[in-house]
Amino acid sequence: MKLYSSMGPNPAVVTMFLAEKGAELPTEKVDLMGGENRQAPYVAKNPAGQLPCLELDDGSHLAEITAICEYLDEKLPGPSLIGATPEERAATRMWVRRIDLNICEPLTSGFRYAEGLPLFQSRMRTIPHAAGDLKELAQEKLTWLDGLMTGKTWVAGERFTLADIMLFCFLQFGATVGQPLNPENKNIVAWFERVKARAGEKAPA
Amino acid sequence: MKLYSSMGPNPAVVTMFLAEKGAELPTEKVDLMGGENRQAPYVAKNPAGQLPCLELDDGSHLAEITAICEYLDEKLPGPSLIGATPEERAATRMWVRRIDLNICEPLTSGFRYAEGLPLFQSRMRTIPHAAGDLKELAQEKLTWLDGLMTGKTWVAGERFTLADIMLFCFLQFGATVGQPLNPENKNIVAWFERVKARAGEKAPA
Repeated sequence: MKLYSSMGPNPAVVTMFLAEKGAELPTEKVDLMGGENRQAPYVAKNPAGQLPCLELDDGSHLAEITAICEYLDEKLPGPSLIGATPEERAATRMWVRRIDLNICEPLTSGFRYAEGLPLFQSRMRTIPHAAGDLKELAQEKLTWLDGLMTGKTWVAGERFTLADIMLFCFLQFGATVGQPLNPENKNIVAWFERVKARAGEKAPA
Repeated sequence: MKLYSSMGPNPAVVTMFLAEKGAELPTEKVDLMGGENRQAPYVAKNPAGQLPCLELDDGSHLAEITAICEYLDEKLPGPSLIGATPEERAATRMWVRRIDLNICEPLTSGFRYAEGLPLFQSRMRTIPHAAGDLKELAQEKLTWLDGLMTGKTWVAGERFTLADIMLFCFLQFGATVGQPLNPENKNIVAWFERVKARAGEKAPA
């Protein structure tokens, strides 16, 4: 396998997932700022033009972070970050999709349509007049999630999963582009510190 | 297991998935138009207040259509609609997420923020000034997908998968709310007819 990666929260999810699995992959950096990801030959690998993308051993290419992480979880040894039973896997996938649609997407679109507009407006349809609402939507859903985190160590309960990795990477990114953690979301703030401490221990030296 | 269901494209995905598996589940209808899904006791089952939701045999509740379908695929007999190998499952999940984020979400939000506004504006943050752009975004991504469908029978190739079910149910819904199929997307139009014929054969009498 070979990983095509870059800056940004999506590649960070796969990098953190690999660190949790204690694995490393040959990695080729793609120049996102220079738009290398929107041109051949990268688009032949991932026609969505986004990073990251995983080259499989049969030469095919796999995109979309949730699909890449599920695949790595199946292929790499060690405890699963999705789940050990159908019920655990189901719960993880439920939380992953809630976080993906309700938080990651509006947070990232809010950035792309505002602070990120100079970079993204020539690459995709941008909706600048929706940026403010999208950022507020992400914050509302975070506050909703905060209420559901009461008494839980990780998003899916006592298991650290892909749901934690996705939420962490996107919130860490958000904080760098004007969407900081809301200090009133005390469960999320405490959870964020737990993930940060854990990630520090797992990160490759 | 017991399914909580209603009208709408999301419940349709699970219903069609079950028909493909040749399975039926005890089903309780929730009154979406009357807002029963936004009140207790339904919100105790699914705090996102959305349909469908699956009650598992241990009494817990599973929401989010992709998670429900993955769970049903693991639990029910018969050929998998996700995939038989890690590589097949990965490809299905990649296409499911592309369709989910790029087509289902903007199509549905475009409806909720325009034609659906009278129903949804009291239930969620709506962004009416983004409705037109979101509908165009869904159409652009459909045209992108149309190009990638050249020579393929189903979205993931020769396998009929959850990706086909999701795309079909949301496009079928879109056509009823002012977002019809674009006849220029000839691959999608032909694929849609193939799924419709197949669904007719699989549907419960």
